[in-house]
Amino acid sequence: MSRIELLTVEGLPEISPGDDLAAMITAAAEQPIDAGDLLVIAHKIVSKAEGSTVELADIEPSPRAIEIAERQQRDPRQVEVILQQSASIIRDSGDLLVCRTHHGLICANAGVDASNSGAEGRLVLLPRDPDASARALRAALPGHPAVLITDSFGRAWRLGQVDVAIGLAGLTPLEDWRGRKDSEGRPLSATLIAVADQAAAAADLARTKDGSCPAVVVRGLDRLISVDDGPGAQALLRPPSEDRFL
Amino acid sequence: MSRIELLTVEGLPEISPGDDLAAMITAAAEQPIDAGDLLVIAHKIVSKAEGSTVELADIEPSPRAIEIAERQQRDPRQVEVILQQSASIIRDSGDLLVCRTHHGLICANAGVDASNSGAEGRLVLLPRDPDASARALRAALPGHPAVLITDSFGRAWRLGQVDVAIGLAGLTPLEDWRGRKDSEGRPLSATLIAVADQAAAAADLARTKDGSCPAVVVRGLDRLISVDDGPGAQALLRPPSEDRFL
Repeated sequence: MSRIELLTVEGLPEISPGDDLAAMITAAAEQPIDAGDLLVIAHKIVSKAEGSTVELADIEPSPRAIEIAERQQRDPRQVEVILQQSASIIRDSGDLLVCRTHHGLICANAGVDASNSGAEGRLVLLPRDPDASARALRAALPGHPAVLITDSFGRAWRLGQVDVAIGLAGLTPLEDWRGRKDSEGRPLSATLIAVADQAAAAADLARTKDGSCPAVVVRGLDRLISVDDGPGAQALLRPPSEDRFL
Repeated sequence: MSRIELLTVEGLPEISPGDDLAAMITAAAEQPIDAGDLLVIAHKIVSKAEGSTVELADIEPSPRAIEIAERQQRDPRQVEVILQQSASIIRDSGDLLVCRTHHGLICANAGVDASNSGAEGRLVLLPRDPDASARALRAALPGHPAVLITDSFGRAWRLGQVDVAIGLAGLTPLEDWRGRKDSEGRPLSATLIAVADQAAAAADLARTKDGSCPAVVVRGLDRLISVDDGPGAQALLRPPSEDRFL
C-alpha cells in the first residue's frame, strides 16, 4: 500500500510586501517540511510578498478597457489591469475574459483578482515569474522541499475551477510514461501525466477558499521530487501551435 | 491542521465481465472502507466488470471511419468504435480525435482505449452510465463509501493528462462558494470548485499508470460526502450553450 498525505499549514498572518514567506511558513508548520515533501502555496501570498498588487485608484483605463468594461459591466480600471497582464485575449463574450498572460498561462481575467487582496480597491496579480518565485522559496526553506505555486483556473467543457501549477521547483511537472507498457505489455494510452497539476488539485482539497489556509504540505511524492529544480510549471504550457482550442 | 490521506488498494486481480467488484475491492483493501471515505476507481475495471468492451475482430468500419483512419494512420475498426461512442466530433486534425461522447464527456477518442484491456485486439469503452455504476458500487460496498469513477483526460491549453470524475455517488461534485466572502469580507473569485475532479486528480497521484492499482481510498473529505448519492459527475459537464471552446 502506498500512501500520500496532505497536511494544511495554518495560522499564517496577512502577508505584506517584503515579508519572508519561507520563515513565516516554517514557523507556522506543525512539523518540519523536509526535502522529500512538496509545499503547495496559493499564488496570492507569493504575489503579496513580492508586491505584485495594484491599487485601482492608480489605474487610468484605456479606451479599449472602457469599451470592454461597459459591455461586460465591470470596473474599467480592473479591465485595464487585465489587459496589461495579457499577451492576448482568447475569448471576450458575456462577462467572460479568457486571456493568455505574458507567462503563457490561459485563464480568466489573466489571473487578476480582487478577493483576499488585503485591502479594498487592491488587485492581486500573478507573480511576475512564478517558476523563479518557486525556486527562490525552495532555496530559502530550511528543508528545501519541492515548491508548487498554484492558482484556481476554470476549464473548457467542464464546470468549476481546479487548482493548477503556475510555478514549480523540484517536482517533475509531467510524468512521462511514453514508451512504457501496461501491465499486459501493450502501449499505454495515457502517457504524459500532468502530475504537478494533479498535486495542485490535491492540495486544494485540503483547504477552504476563504484564503485562511494558503499552504499545504504533500507527503509521499518522493518519486517525483528531485534535487534539481527542473523545468518548472512553464513545461505544462501547450505550445499555441499545437493547440486546437484557441 | 487538517489532513487528507490517499491509500492505494493493491492486488486486485484482472477483472472479467460479471465480476463482483465491490467484493473484490473489499477483499483487497487493507483497512475497512467506511462511510466517510471516498473510493476512487479507474473506470477501466468498471467497464470490464460490466462488459463494456469490444473485440476489434467483430467491427466492420464505415466509410467515414475508413476515411479518418487513413488520414490519421489508425486502425479503421478502432475509429469506427470511437465514432459509435461519440455524439459528435469536436476536433479531427493530425492524429487527434476529440469527441463528445453520448454521456456528454469531451475527451480524446471518446474514451476508447486499447491499453490494459485484458486481451490483444480488445478495446475498453467508458461505462454506459458511469453515475449509475458509481451508485451501484456504493450500494454494494459494505461501508457504503462515496464512489468516484475516473478517466484520464487531456486538456485544452495545458500539456499532459489529468484524471477527472466521470461517475460519482455520494460526493459533492462542485463545492459552491458563491455568495460567501473571503477572510476579509469581500466576494470570492473562485467560487465553484470542481472538488470531484480534484479528488480524481489527487487519487491518480497515488497510483502508477501500468494499471496495476486501479483503486485508491481518500480519507478526510467528510465535509463533501453525503448519505444522498447526489447529482453525480454529470453535474460537472458544462452545457454546450455556455461553452466558448467547442
